[in-house]
Amino acid sequence: MDEAALRALLESVRTGAISTQQAFERVRALPFEDVGFARLDHHRTLRTGIPEVVYGEGKSADQIASLLQSIHARDVPAFATRVDPEKAARVLSLLPAAVHNPVARTLHLPLAARSDLQRAPICVVSAGTSDAAVAEEAAVTLEVMGSAVVRVTDVGVAGIHRLFDVLHVLRGAHVNIVVAGMEGALPSVVAGLVSTPVIAVPTSIGYGANFGGLAALLGMLCSCAPGVTVVNIDNGFGAACAALLIARSRER
Amino acid sequence: MDEAALRALLESVRTGAISTQQAFERVRALPFEDVGFARLDHHRTLRTGIPEVVYGEGKSADQIASLLQSIHARDVPAFATRVDPEKAARVLSLLPAAVHNPVARTLHLPLAARSDLQRAPICVVSAGTSDAAVAEEAAVTLEVMGSAVVRVTDVGVAGIHRLFDVLHVLRGAHVNIVVAGMEGALPSVVAGLVSTPVIAVPTSIGYGANFGGLAALLGMLCSCAPGVTVVNIDNGFGAACAALLIARSRER
Amino acid sequence: MDEAALRALLESVRTGAISTQQAFERVRALPFEDVGFARLDHHRTLRTGIPEVVYGEGKSADQIASLLQSIHARDVPAFATRVDPEKAARVLSLLPAAVHNPVARTLHLPLAARSDLQRAPICVVSAGTSDAAVAEEAAVTLEVMGSAVVRVTDVGVAGIHRLFDVLHVLRGAHVNIVVAGMEGALPSVVAGLVSTPVIAVPTSIGYGANFGGLAALLGMLCSCAPGVTVVNIDNGFGAACAALLIARSRER
Amino acid sequence: MDEAALRALLESVRTGAISTQQAFERVRALPFEDVGFARLDHHRTLRTGIPEVVYGEGKSADQIASLLQSIHARDVPAFATRVDPEKAARVLSLLPAAVHNPVARTLHLPLAARSDLQRAPICVVSAGTSDAAVAEEAAVTLEVMGSAVVRVTDVGVAGIHRLFDVLHVLRGAHVNIVVAGMEGALPSVVAGLVSTPVIAVPTSIGYGANFGGLAALLGMLCSCAPGVTVVNIDNGFGAACAALLIARSRER
Amino acid sequence: MDEAALRALLESVRTGAISTQQAFERVRALPFEDVGFARLDHHRTLRTGIPEVVYGEGKSADQIASLLQSIHARDVPAFATRVDPEKAARVLSLLPAAVHNPVARTLHLPLAARSDLQRAPICVVSAGTSDAAVAEEAAVTLEVMGSAVVRVTDVGVAGIHRLFDVLHVLRGAHVNIVVAGMEGALPSVVAGLVSTPVIAVPTSIGYGANFGGLAALLGMLCSCAPGVTVVNIDNGFGAACAALLIARSRER
Amino acid sequence: MDEAALRALLESVRTGAISTQQAFERVRALPFEDVGFARLDHHRTLRTGIPEVVYGEGKSADQIASLLQSIHARDVPAFATRVDPEKAARVLSLLPAAVHNPVARTLHLPLAARSDLQRAPICVVSAGTSDAAVAEEAAVTLEVMGSAVVRVTDVGVAGIHRLFDVLHVLRGAHVNIVVAGMEGALPSVVAGLVSTPVIAVPTSIGYGANFGGLAALLGMLCSCAPGVTVVNIDNGFGAACAALLIARSRER
Amino acid sequence: MDEAALRALLESVRTGAISTQQAFERVRALPFEDVGFARLDHHRTLRTGIPEVVYGEGKSADQIASLLQSIHARDVPAFATRVDPEKAARVLSLLPAAVHNPVARTLHLPLAARSDLQRAPICVVSAGTSDAAVAEEAAVTLEVMGSAVVRVTDVGVAGIHRLFDVLHVLRGAHVNIVVAGMEGALPSVVAGLVSTPVIAVPTSIGYGANFGGLAALLGMLCSCAPGVTVVNIDNGFGAACAALLIARSRER
Amino acid sequence: MDEAALRALLESVRTGAISTQQAFERVRALPFEDVGFARLDHHRTLRTGIPEVVYGEGKSADQIASLLQSIHARDVPAFATRVDPEKAARVLSLLPAAVHNPVARTLHLPLAARSDLQRAPICVVSAGTSDAAVAEEAAVTLEVMGSAVVRVTDVGVAGIHRLFDVLHVLRGAHVNIVVAGMEGALPSVVAGLVSTPVIAVPTSIGYGANFGGLAALLGMLCSCAPGVTVVNIDNGFGAACAALLIARSRER
Repeated sequence: MDEAALRALLESVRTGAISTQQAFERVRALPFEDVGFARLDHHRTLRTGIPEVVYGEGKSADQIASLLQSIHARDVPAFATRVDPEKAARVLSLLPAAVHNPVARTLHLPLAARSDLQRAPICVVSAGTSDAAVAEEAAVTLEVMGSAVVRVTDVGVAGIHRLFDVLHVLRGAHVNIVVAGMEGALPSVVAGLVSTPVIAVPTSIGYGANFGGLAALLGMLCSCAPGVTVVNIDNGFGAACAALLIARSRER
Repeated sequence: MDEAALRALLESVRTGAISTQQAFERVRALPFEDVGFARLDHHRTLRTGIPEVVYGEGKSADQIASLLQSIHARDVPAFATRVDPEKAARVLSLLPAAVHNPVARTLHLPLAARSDLQRAPICVVSAGTSDAAVAEEAAVTLEVMGSAVVRVTDVGVAGIHRLFDVLHVLRGAHVNIVVAGMEGALPSVVAGLVSTPVIAVPTSIGYGANFGGLAALLGMLCSCAPGVTVVNIDNGFGAACAALLIARSRER
Repeated sequence: MDEAALRALLESVRTGAISTQQAFERVRALPFEDVGFARLDHHRTLRTGIPEVVYGEGKSADQIASLLQSIHARDVPAFATRVDPEKAARVLSLLPAAVHNPVARTLHLPLAARSDLQRAPICVVSAGTSDAAVAEEAAVTLEVMGSAVVRVTDVGVAGIHRLFDVLHVLRGAHVNIVVAGMEGALPSVVAGLVSTPVIAVPTSIGYGANFGGLAALLGMLCSCAPGVTVVNIDNGFGAACAALLIARSRER
Repeated sequence: MDEAALRALLESVRTGAISTQQAFERVRALPFEDVGFARLDHHRTLRTGIPEVVYGEGKSADQIASLLQSIHARDVPAFATRVDPEKAARVLSLLPAAVHNPVARTLHLPLAARSDLQRAPICVVSAGTSDAAVAEEAAVTLEVMGSAVVRVTDVGVAGIHRLFDVLHVLRGAHVNIVVAGMEGALPSVVAGLVSTPVIAVPTSIGYGANFGGLAALLGMLCSCAPGVTVVNIDNGFGAACAALLIARSRER
Repeated sequence: MDEAALRALLESVRTGAISTQQAFERVRALPFEDVGFARLDHHRTLRTGIPEVVYGEGKSADQIASLLQSIHARDVPAFATRVDPEKAARVLSLLPAAVHNPVARTLHLPLAARSDLQRAPICVVSAGTSDAAVAEEAAVTLEVMGSAVVRVTDVGVAGIHRLFDVLHVLRGAHVNIVVAGMEGALPSVVAGLVSTPVIAVPTSIGYGANFGGLAALLGMLCSCAPGVTVVNIDNGFGAACAALLIARSRER
Repeated sequence: MDEAALRALLESVRTGAISTQQAFERVRALPFEDVGFARLDHHRTLRTGIPEVVYGEGKSADQIASLLQSIHARDVPAFATRVDPEKAARVLSLLPAAVHNPVARTLHLPLAARSDLQRAPICVVSAGTSDAAVAEEAAVTLEVMGSAVVRVTDVGVAGIHRLFDVLHVLRGAHVNIVVAGMEGALPSVVAGLVSTPVIAVPTSIGYGANFGGLAALLGMLCSCAPGVTVVNIDNGFGAACAALLIARSRER
Repeated sequence: MDEAALRALLESVRTGAISTQQAFERVRALPFEDVGFARLDHHRTLRTGIPEVVYGEGKSADQIASLLQSIHARDVPAFATRVDPEKAARVLSLLPAAVHNPVARTLHLPLAARSDLQRAPICVVSAGTSDAAVAEEAAVTLEVMGSAVVRVTDVGVAGIHRLFDVLHVLRGAHVNIVVAGMEGALPSVVAGLVSTPVIAVPTSIGYGANFGGLAALLGMLCSCAPGVTVVNIDNGFGAACAALLIARSRER
Repeated sequence: MDEAALRALLESVRTGAISTQQAFERVRALPFEDVGFARLDHHRTLRTGIPEVVYGEGKSADQIASLLQSIHARDVPAFATRVDPEKAARVLSLLPAAVHNPVARTLHLPLAARSDLQRAPICVVSAGTSDAAVAEEAAVTLEVMGSAVVRVTDVGVAGIHRLFDVLHVLRGAHVNIVVAGMEGALPSVVAGLVSTPVIAVPTSIGYGANFGGLAALLGMLCSCAPGVTVVNIDNGFGAACAALLIARSRER
């Protein structure tokens, strides 16, 4: 409820168009739905541009199915992340219309009709084949939210000529999401070669001094290429959301 | 040198318009200037949208002045960050035309003429008065690079009503750069309330378990609000660069 | 044995009311019961206000059942935490009167008669549905120890309007236990809005740079809202104990 | 503005007692004062029970003096922490009425008249003489906020009999704030001996594997005595605020 | 081979009592046995007072059995640590004479005859019942190596009166090995009460900010009681070896 | 494509020996093979001296078999690391010609004919029997890549005379790869005794304060013996590659 | 006050030899002296074998002088550690009889007469010349407390033959205190060669991945030589205290 | 003293060519010089190929001068690292023949005559101008030890075309020492492009999440380019020593 709405509401009270009780309810009414074990934040799309998404870890298949249906009923993308294969199978038996991506570990309920955006795609670049799960989580999130996506795979810095071969693809994208584990050097190199926003996603791929993705995370935060921003380790979903906000900022 | 340029160059060789020696020089010519102690990357603006900026720490006043002049001669913004007061005074004695911002610890040489961009401004929001140096580094970077800026100060989450008072300002911005130390909670709250991209900047303000900004950094990376991206601790400059790339992506 | 008791005891020796041997035994007698594999600290309730509670990890079902019975025989709440489902089942087969809470992973033996306290309840607020296990451990501990409890769920800062809807509940509580994972920002926001004591409980919910709850823990310790105190990661039990001590301090 | 106030305000609009413009201003008016470089949160006392306090680090003497005066004008305790000796001297030259505690590094402006609370005091216990600065910060905060304080010094666990000598003092307190560096064991021992709330304050006293207070902090968080809560390293001020909230909860 | 032996050997060469070839072999002969996958250091007992002990992790049951037999053949204690139950069963089927301690996770082959030492025992003190595995590893090591042992269990600082009840036992010991997890405060308290050497063993018992025993380890290293020495987390074996060296230093 | 090749190519365009389209393809053609889920970098041997090796973790048996065959077809060593036993069995069923080393967890396809190098061998020294997996990964990598190898096992610093017995072997090697867990002291001792390059490999063997190999890693990085270089924890493969580059530098 | 003393005291009360008031005072009398800013623990020598020592950091010269005098008056060694040169000069002007060791940063007041112990000395071995401050703190502590000391310097593992030259000295000592920075490998090597207790002292000498002594600390804790115990980084004083307790255990 | 020498020595004893006393002295004589505060390891060059070098931190100017002279007298390179400007000036006043490099912070005494090696040079590549001190320490070490050096500066990955311009230089070197701070990505890129050994040197250049060079260190250890080895943060000296050992291995 912004300033204008508040002024209008108060004017309606003054003129008697609505009762004080009605006004109280309107001011007080908070845009969420209490489904018992959670408070679904249905107005999140209006407020932030990103609908509420179901984080699958620690939730039962029943809870995931119930939340997806509740979101779907509002005609916004119903999407769940971090759903392991067994749980996904149980959700699919409850919601046969759901679509499961086993690499990205996601589930979603397709919307009836959606005009795909015609603008420049968002590019998801990954350094190694081992980063596929994270890159795919980003790519599927973008697709479910209605964005065009280009995937560029296995262009890590140990063979940097592979990157130059696809540089025109990265340069033609609206945003580049760059996914890398190990030393996480790829975003720095990419950001030195393109003029689009670069969102870096460290992955937990590696061992020893990688410390679960810490090496890649610190490397990306300390990038010598200005303009790189970073999301949490393995957070393909978050990177996709940030890219969507950037892409949509062009349309406003 | 992109694909089209390479095709054209090769065609010129074929037609004899240029000699193989000339072609070799063109292909080989790398766009940097060797000034003895550094290789200035003058084409960085063309390639990445951000000109090379002088990082002041560990450089002498002479080196900073020399690099600023070399950059300025190319008619791009000549800008230096992390310049402490004594060093800044010495640079100013060498380059009287330079402008010094003591809060942001920056120096720059103003460009002769620049039409400020007319689009939505970029908003720099800071949680506490102690975050001023980092917030101001971001704001000055934006201004030097030609962007309109709005500063919103002291709206930390311990008195969250102060944020609601300025929410319309944040919602009207193109990008929100949110600067916070201590627990670094402000970006999560902002990202739950606006639909613009949010770039979070952790600061090293705090003590004890803050561990030099680590608490704020980890908090921002783990934000429960999807779409927040993060830059290095105290990296106001990097956040501004990222915001500029996002703002410019609208114009392409 | 306090000063007065010691004076009285010595007086009894002087008057011959008790023998020196008896006095020696009294001074020496320490209030614990050696059950072979443990020394049960039965006077802990008198001394600290909190009875000895069985920490279930690393103990066998037999040991847990035996300790619960020994405590129960003293007519204080017999309570065990961190009991996984399989072990709980085995304890229940040994102690059919025990009550198992699978979400909180607790077991307890109900006391015959207990007059619930009529004062203000203690409120257990949790940021997300994934924090349920920790929040429930706190809530069950409070109930077993005889306190009224109100649970408020899923009011994380990414949709902060959900919190405002229940603010009157938090303001009416005696103490607020605020449970949050990820960036752990909720306690700061709550502490800026209420005048009750706020006990923050970081949870290990999250991934990557969360580092097993470290992000939330550091954030809560660095809270910009003065007056927040913190317990160990996932330590719902400890938070409940601290809240009980605060609530009881009113009655003394 | 709570529910009742909102209902009343809307009723006033309905009856015409106030204009919609007036109502708009009332709803919108946020209780802070914009003093240029900061937004003073004057209603914080009403909302949280703790007035806004000036954190001295990173602020100039002029700013501290200005903020203290602005707070003092509202007749609430004007108090600044973390003010080093030189800065304190400069503030005192600007505000001769201010009181400086060099051990605690605090400054405050005494209120004209204040009836000290007659309830049980809050006890500030410190393990070693080196912990004095942190303990004194806690004690002065309590005094400035109007609480009775008892200081117990140098009762660390290496000579635990010193603690037993003062145990009756700790047992008679409303809350015990226990300050310790090095291994930080004192709060565990105290919490096993008293039934009052115990707030543990780790200090950065120590060297080597102390890692700036980390050893004491982790030790206190992992205390085997249930009910201990912890604040940030060296945060005597925060511990005092938490103790005040507990003490006041008794009076409501 | 010490100085005197070398002088004697050279004299024997000079006098022709031994040939240069024999002397070469003597100088060169290194006191270990190459059993293919390992080099058994049989002279370790002579050199360091502690025989070579088999570290069971990462070794097969066959390897453990073979090493135990090879050591046993030299008539020194044959002892293996960190042997999990399944592996221990397989070793026992190969070496029926071996003795398995399932709590300590050890295996050993008893020596035919051994006169137990008559001196003061070594005391193994543990803070909680959960520390049993580590304490028992220390106790069994001492017994296998021929030392008298006293076990004192469950005397953690949260109920410190339990410690005072057994203080005479600790004071009568030759060395006190103090085992504690969580905050690891027990060694500091013990070292402040006894005049024997105190060896502190942190355990990984705990969760959250315990970080696998780090909290207890740092606490013990930062002990305010001078004279406490520390071994690795969960290293009951190492603590026992250190205690043995101390006990034996008395007899030399 | 080096300078000479580029000059030749351009000359060919000028003379019409190849068309501009052909030249474009040649310049553009990057030496990798896109096999769908990966971009195989076949020219890596030419460029870096080390062929592309398959990192087995996170890849399916089908993918590993497919990549090994694709590499083998180019007549360079086809080699996979970090293949667990079950996956290795599945690869072997697909590629019966492959050779599996279960200790080293490697798989490779032998080349038809290869003349072993006649130079000094590379020595792989390991401190303890528990370091076998890492040492063997190094040794097998060297053998597959065509180098002579000497293995020296179980010469840790706790019985340093074992090292002196084999010192002539280490002194005769071209490079010494020194593998150690726990405190990782062996490389320092070796580097103080030999004049060959020493590559240190920390292993994750150990527990507690070892923190997954961190203790050995930090120790090796801080070695007081100048000239020691270090690879990642457990990275026997990387150490072998570095040793190969050193050995080959002699032949150029 | 031990069991026998308590029995005797109670018997005296019974017989009327002392009044209950006197008995109360005796039981209650705690052996410390309250000097205002500290509670001196004068009975610490009786209880633990080590007198209370003044930790100089954070104390004023006046406080140090006052504490030294108070301890000296009891005829036990009056000793202060961590006193920087300026503060030491101020203490010396107050206490001309004090002795200052600038390398060890200690001050002490010599006792009038003391018969040096005739037993085997304690050996302080240091790896490099940079470890002198820590080694000397240990050596001076031993001397002040009445122990014979042998110093062995600069025998680090990079030139391990230097150690063998002095091995007979180490073998003849009662205890070996081994001081080392960087990788901290020396204690492992020593403990593999001698049969005396070895106390390892990590120092903060080094840079980079040394992390203020962490590398040496972790290395020593993970020593492959059983029986090594460790004290805090740079804690020469603590190592000396531990060695004294060991040496004295022989005399009891 | 190797096997052959020992055999010869013993034969000399047998034949009476030398006395047993002489033989004892020879066997016992350890190749170091005791200069009071240090044991100079003069035979280190023979043993390890690298002479003993003076580490300047923590040593006085007098000590440095004395050690340099003692080394110089043996006709090996006398070299000191980590000497700050003031200390260097004092050494120069004592040793006017010494040469000071203020960027590298080194001092050395030139040898009278030295034929520079004619082989391929060692290349020192640095990512940014801020890495100069570390790169120069490596370069000066190489020069003092008699190696040809090529310096390549400011070729960081944010403008990777600068690297390609000098790739022929790197490919022509014997070894490449690659120095980089921030994310430390340059060694990975270089190692993917050259077939020489690559020694990576992380620097502490950077701020925030760089954590004193930790980000670069972890990144280099986790490099996706096999064959990269790493030295300690800022350890240009150590990298040069490793490169020298590699270069010399070619000549043996």
